[in-house]
Amino acid sequence: MISVSKAKQQILKALPQLPKEIIKIEESLGRILAEPVIADRDFPLFDNSAMDGIALKAADTQGASAENPVQLSLVKTIPAGYAADQRLEPGQAAQIMTGAPVPPGADAVLPVESTDLDFSKPLDRTEAAIFQAVKPGDYIRRQGEYYQHGAILLDKGWEIRSQDIALFATVGQAEITVYRKPRVGLLTTGDELVAPDQPLEPGKIRDSNSYMLRALLEKSGAVAITSGVVADKEEEVIHALDRLIEQDIDLLLTSGGVSMGAFDVVRKVLETHGRVELWKVNMRPGKPLTFGRFREIPFIGLAGNPVSAFVGFQIFVFPALRHMAGVGAPLLTIEASLTADLHSDGRESYIPATLKNEQETWIVEPVQNQSSGNLYALIPTNSLIILPVGVEFLNKGELVKVFEM
Amino acid sequence: MISVSKAKQQILKALPQLPKEIIKIEESLGRILAEPVIADRDFPLFDNSAMDGIALKAADTQGASAENPVQLSLVKTIPAGYAADQRLEPGQAAQIMTGAPVPPGADAVLPVESTDLDFSKPLDRTEAAIFQAVKPGDYIRRQGEYYQHGAILLDKGWEIRSQDIALFATVGQAEITVYRKPRVGLLTTGDELVAPDQPLEPGKIRDSNSYMLRALLEKSGAVAITSGVVADKEEEVIHALDRLIEQDIDLLLTSGGVSMGAFDVVRKVLETHGRVELWKVNMRPGKPLTFGRFREIPFIGLAGNPVSAFVGFQIFVFPALRHMAGVGAPLLTIEASLTADLHSDGRESYIPATLKNEQETWIVEPVQNQSSGNLYALIPTNSLIILPVGVEFLNKGELVKVFEM
Repeated sequence: MISVSKAKQQILKALPQLPKEIIKIEESLGRILAEPVIADRDFPLFDNSAMDGIALKAADTQGASAENPVQLSLVKTIPAGYAADQRLEPGQAAQIMTGAPVPPGADAVLPVESTDLDFSKPLDRTEAAIFQAVKPGDYIRRQGEYYQHGAILLDKGWEIRSQDIALFATVGQAEITVYRKPRVGLLTTGDELVAPDQPLEPGKIRDSNSYMLRALLEKSGAVAITSGVVADKEEEVIHALDRLIEQDIDLLLTSGGVSMGAFDVVRKVLETHGRVELWKVNMRPGKPLTFGRFREIPFIGLAGNPVSAFVGFQIFVFPALRHMAGVGAPLLTIEASLTADLHSDGRESYIPATLKNEQETWIVEPVQNQSSGNLYALIPTNSLIILPVGVEFLNKGELVKVFEM
Repeated sequence: MISVSKAKQQILKALPQLPKEIIKIEESLGRILAEPVIADRDFPLFDNSAMDGIALKAADTQGASAENPVQLSLVKTIPAGYAADQRLEPGQAAQIMTGAPVPPGADAVLPVESTDLDFSKPLDRTEAAIFQAVKPGDYIRRQGEYYQHGAILLDKGWEIRSQDIALFATVGQAEITVYRKPRVGLLTTGDELVAPDQPLEPGKIRDSNSYMLRALLEKSGAVAITSGVVADKEEEVIHALDRLIEQDIDLLLTSGGVSMGAFDVVRKVLETHGRVELWKVNMRPGKPLTFGRFREIPFIGLAGNPVSAFVGFQIFVFPALRHMAGVGAPLLTIEASLTADLHSDGRESYIPATLKNEQETWIVEPVQNQSSGNLYALIPTNSLIILPVGVEFLNKGELVKVFEM
């Protein structure tokens, strides 16, 4: 049986790259940059005041203190947003607001708290007493201090956060080039499945995986196109897949129907009408993982138990979605101490768990009931304990690698 | 000056609770439960097979091994989704698929791998040789093993994830009661601000905060209703606030205009046409933080510098949004070792930083340029270093508390 890392490699290699699209920056949260973002000019754009205060010549402030204030004449008031064209002469100062351009002739700003001015009153004073000396450059944000015209500020492959959107605005980009969201066709099969609002006949269970996978896709920045519940019949599965493909799909995804049982129709359809390129991975849960193609569209078949499907999504599907945008998604882990003994069966194991930071150490509590059919066991979890091949038992207190979800 | 924790307490106490609404579970990712979720029946719903295999009486398997197989007669095949009504008699077995109901009379399942059957071939065999003994209960998932009818599975205040949505489906809830998304009126003021796609005249800068705050609101599960850029004139600010309030707003939010300068119109409007209940917090950055009311709607005014606005959002606005859904949002921190010396000024400080796990220890790199005007400094960061009141210097290698964003 193939290892998890080999299986993942093989799947990633077989995936297409997503096309690019241009979107408004207001809609770009969580999207992935497809082109670098370049500084259109220096930032700050111009020398500006870091404080509400007065712009002045540092030389005029020498020796100033509360006991020996220096008097300067106020020749101007500069609010943010207004150009500062009048040059200051020796002995002159200008009232200036945070962010406003420093006027020619000034080489420092003194915060208002170090003067006898009160900016909450009308700004009609013609003189100010200053109580503190400053050096040239004090309280001035210099043009280009943060970055300079032409600099690459963000490279492609970057996942966009709130502060990045502010940066796009700062460099004058109202639109941005990103990778199109992956479009994933989600096939749900199973004669036993009933929608949550339908009555349950004997032997039936409620479809839960398709709701979970749809939400996992949404959270991963993908678009789910769903088939509805399809009966375990070859022609119906083929018809449903063809209808999904008509909707401009990058990847087909399913859970269940890929084991070796006689009723595992999905795998049969893939064998007869497509290709199975990979089947069964040496992992727990989720061994029957399948990768192949149907009408040349890549196809990931996760095992059908809810915990297996959930783990398979984290380990294979999420990296696949990122890879199509040219982004790596390595499984970053931290070490934590087990709060309970842990059994496994020697396969590479992914055990849902609750990771906590207690008194500055990381502890991890594996789920008590490891049955892959137990969706409810996933509820309190926030992580997966990863056990390498060959490990069958670990004692409480031993360190394990944990992937935080 | 009031401390951060006192300011936060005061703000949270003044906020209203959000109303509830009923939504489809497909749209519930990230929303917050407003009513508990109760098990509508046992789960598993019925005793079912954990494997593809044969259902049998454990007593019939005594002594079975590869050398001494036991022969059983196959009387039925039970796929998932079909009721199992025929009772097994001694010596009888039924082919059974994962998830299918265990028939009456059977008390264990034997995986197909331990028989001479091949489920990838037609299932027309009438006898099976079995190579292994099982105990009663083996490979059966018992009805109610994971939870029982009437159990509270999730309580209100829970933030909904993918696996929770699967659980809703399992308990037959196609709809769920959540708190309505907080609706936040975002006021942007400043004569200096220009939209990213407009030309920059001298002294002007591009509006970036409103894009950042809008995205932070979106990421926090709130709806942003925006004012566009409003000039620094009292009557225009009042008009813009009134227009926002018409749109069923739970909270008003702004950045800038709340300092002590003569051009800080927002604070003046709040003083003359509303109430200022809190102004200035002993923190860095973000000291001019303002809380008050306008037409009785709660109003949070963040400092105008981009880093100050960003930090203020994390420390005050995010908890406020959660609080309105009855959810606590404590600032969970971990300890990490500084990669560089760190200066502060004795106020409670929130310094953007990059937190990394390297060789199983946590290290944190503070931004080099701590200017609160330097939006670009936020780009590589993923966390905030929190320094308590009174700390002015820390050496490289010292441990600090870090809040991961």
